[in-house]
Amino acid sequence: MSKVLIRAMVLPMTGPDSFYPQGEIAIENDRIVSVGAYGSVPTGFIPDRILELPNDVVMPGLINTHTHAAMTLLRSYADDLPLMPWLKEKVWPFEEKLTEEDIYWGTALALCEMIRSGTTTMLDMYASMDQVAEAVLMAGTRAVLSRGLIGNGPNGKRALEENIELVQRYHGAGAGRISIMFGPHAPYTCSAEYLRSVKVEADRLGVGIHIHVAETEDEIKIIQEQYGKTPVQWLDELGLFGGHVVAAHCVHLTPEDMDILASKRVCVAHNAESNMKLSSGTAPITELRAKGVILGLGTDSASSNNNLDLFGEMRSAALQQKLKVNSTALPAYEVLEMATLGGAQTLGLEDVGMLAPGFKADIISIDMDQPHFYPRFSIPAHLVYVAHAGDVRTVMVDGKLLMEERKLLTMDVGKVCQEAETRAKRINGELNG
Amino acid sequence: MSKVLIRAMVLPMTGPDSFYPQGEIAIENDRIVSVGAYGSVPTGFIPDRILELPNDVVMPGLINTHTHAAMTLLRSYADDLPLMPWLKEKVWPFEEKLTEEDIYWGTALALCEMIRSGTTTMLDMYASMDQVAEAVLMAGTRAVLSRGLIGNGPNGKRALEENIELVQRYHGAGAGRISIMFGPHAPYTCSAEYLRSVKVEADRLGVGIHIHVAETEDEIKIIQEQYGKTPVQWLDELGLFGGHVVAAHCVHLTPEDMDILASKRVCVAHNAESNMKLSSGTAPITELRAKGVILGLGTDSASSNNNLDLFGEMRSAALQQKLKVNSTALPAYEVLEMATLGGAQTLGLEDVGMLAPGFKADIISIDMDQPHFYPRFSIPAHLVYVAHAGDVRTVMVDGKLLMEERKLLTMDVGKVCQEAETRAKRINGELNG
Repeated sequence: MSKVLIRAMVLPMTGPDSFYPQGEIAIENDRIVSVGAYGSVPTGFIPDRILELPNDVVMPGLINTHTHAAMTLLRSYADDLPLMPWLKEKVWPFEEKLTEEDIYWGTALALCEMIRSGTTTMLDMYASMDQVAEAVLMAGTRAVLSRGLIGNGPNGKRALEENIELVQRYHGAGAGRISIMFGPHAPYTCSAEYLRSVKVEADRLGVGIHIHVAETEDEIKIIQEQYGKTPVQWLDELGLFGGHVVAAHCVHLTPEDMDILASKRVCVAHNAESNMKLSSGTAPITELRAKGVILGLGTDSASSNNNLDLFGEMRSAALQQKLKVNSTALPAYEVLEMATLGGAQTLGLEDVGMLAPGFKADIISIDMDQPHFYPRFSIPAHLVYVAHAGDVRTVMVDGKLLMEERKLLTMDVGKVCQEAETRAKRINGELNG
Repeated sequence: MSKVLIRAMVLPMTGPDSFYPQGEIAIENDRIVSVGAYGSVPTGFIPDRILELPNDVVMPGLINTHTHAAMTLLRSYADDLPLMPWLKEKVWPFEEKLTEEDIYWGTALALCEMIRSGTTTMLDMYASMDQVAEAVLMAGTRAVLSRGLIGNGPNGKRALEENIELVQRYHGAGAGRISIMFGPHAPYTCSAEYLRSVKVEADRLGVGIHIHVAETEDEIKIIQEQYGKTPVQWLDELGLFGGHVVAAHCVHLTPEDMDILASKRVCVAHNAESNMKLSSGTAPITELRAKGVILGLGTDSASSNNNLDLFGEMRSAALQQKLKVNSTALPAYEVLEMATLGGAQTLGLEDVGMLAPGFKADIISIDMDQPHFYPRFSIPAHLVYVAHAGDVRTVMVDGKLLMEERKLLTMDVGKVCQEAETRAKRINGELNG
């Protein structure tokens, strides 16, 4: 299909007052031609198909700015444990057993769940990223992919080579749906020399950097002891913050750290639910926002969340800030911005995150004709404080429908679920059998 | 139908290790006859109907221990405001406009949402409680109802009379599905004399008391200034804590307060999301549990949540405790207990909250054949950390199906939603028109 017209309630995310109760979006191939009220479609636009969704709110697809998709295979495998036993006795031994094919199917499972919950783009960090890229190409979503680099580990050098190869092989793949970043894991798992070499390669290839920063108090202590600085100050001094950088978590920051992030245009991926579940703390999102830092939302992995649902993440992000600051902190529209336009900016994607002419047709619809969405006073408040993953009806990426009436169109869901189940249980059997 | 057999994965909530991957529940009229693995049904039990739900988890219906159901009419009407302007300029003026019929339809909307999200019982506090009772009788759910009593208000005396009439008219109605409590609003809105007269009437009629306690720091200050004590100590000295009492919120407690609640068997209704959204604080649930206090979960009203979804509430309750205490706090099974058996104990209902012979057939099923529920490592972790309201497939109360395949069987959803929309918009027009 090349020309599509959507009729629905339209929340374009172009500003707090932009809303069309009876709206129309014209789409040609992968891009939006026009957005407005009924009758706003350009004359001469003859759609091949009309999607009539009068009881749905249509908005930009949600953007998950930090995840490890294949870790859906560890969903509900280990919970409610202290951090280090959870990692050392559960997560890491399981991950060591993962084959390339496991990672393909774990990512496919994540993508099924993401599409069904209205997420059209993710920033991923993991291993075997060729498999992740192939799963994304199959699913039809948008993704920014980074090879996780444990610089201090035995495979640090090889992993960096893999990340370089990933850029060469997949940057721009899928008609631009895939782009690549470098994924140095964290300041405490990568040496200064290693981080410098990552930065050199990222600059040479013209891509960005995705890194965990200031997630836990332990990390702050380790970096303080090792370098006498905060993680943000240390990375800044190293020169890592010149270009496009996504810093995931940023829970524990000093005012100076926040000023550095703002002045160096470092983007922050906020992971409210993971930070609560692992007892990491509450990131200073309200202050970061006041300083103008670009902010996105992330779910982190399904092993510390345990879903990849950005609707739940929006609610949790708002509630966590209100708990810490006051009841006016992080109002609904600002959270929606983090999950859409802010996410796009975080990922360096200039033509997604809003519904506007020239933007990519990455669009979702939410079924508002359900008891929990009545009465209809505020659509932003409904989306943040009321909506569930299961309320998403339609998902489109690059003008192509990936889900209609909650049916996935690009993936065999039954096959994906069975592969995930079999593979996860195989590993569990090897470890605990 | 008089005899029903359910085949499913069964989580009876009779203990952390009780789970039947291939389970059977036999039901006769309103009660459970047997629960066990395939083949455990008593010989001679010939079902009139068999519900085959091999991919569903079947568990006790969820219990909402604190809400103001009719306030769904204020859903997303006013958010992200400071507490007092929110109440004085938005909530109270809106509530003054509510007619008895508005309260009926607002409650009906709440019950639609509750059934669709797996809640079979609520403890409600509001006005025009006859209307609420009639909505519950129509919907087919279970409910404990209390007339909200602002003792210091102009209608304090009349409201107490209404609560007495409510007991006389509806206690035991609907074949026992409805029971009644007294609903003195809070220690700062009721005088000592008023609270004593409530207690006299509650004892005389043999019913319990439902009251807001220690919700905000402001309340602590007010009671301290007025009586030189904490709210819990004040209510205890007054003698309010002799019989069955549900104390909603209990966010700000001293160790002595917790000892009083434990020794007087006061039940606590915990409202994690409302406490976060209104920036009230984090209730000491982990400590209360350690002291043996009976705990249930509540959503509070849709105007401070903004949904009535106990699945979201379970996740938020767990995440909030972990954020405050550590990652091992309030593990998944304990949260499930609060939402089921703990809720039943909180409400003084002795034959709901578990699936066991002799218990009422208040049962829900959750569709686990969806990507976000794979792989299937831990059913309790899936239910708390992964599930959404929309995953509930089947709801039964007193052996009667209220929802099948997500279709409500006792209510005309379209009519309820339209009535709610029209009535809420009418009031909004009168106020802001």
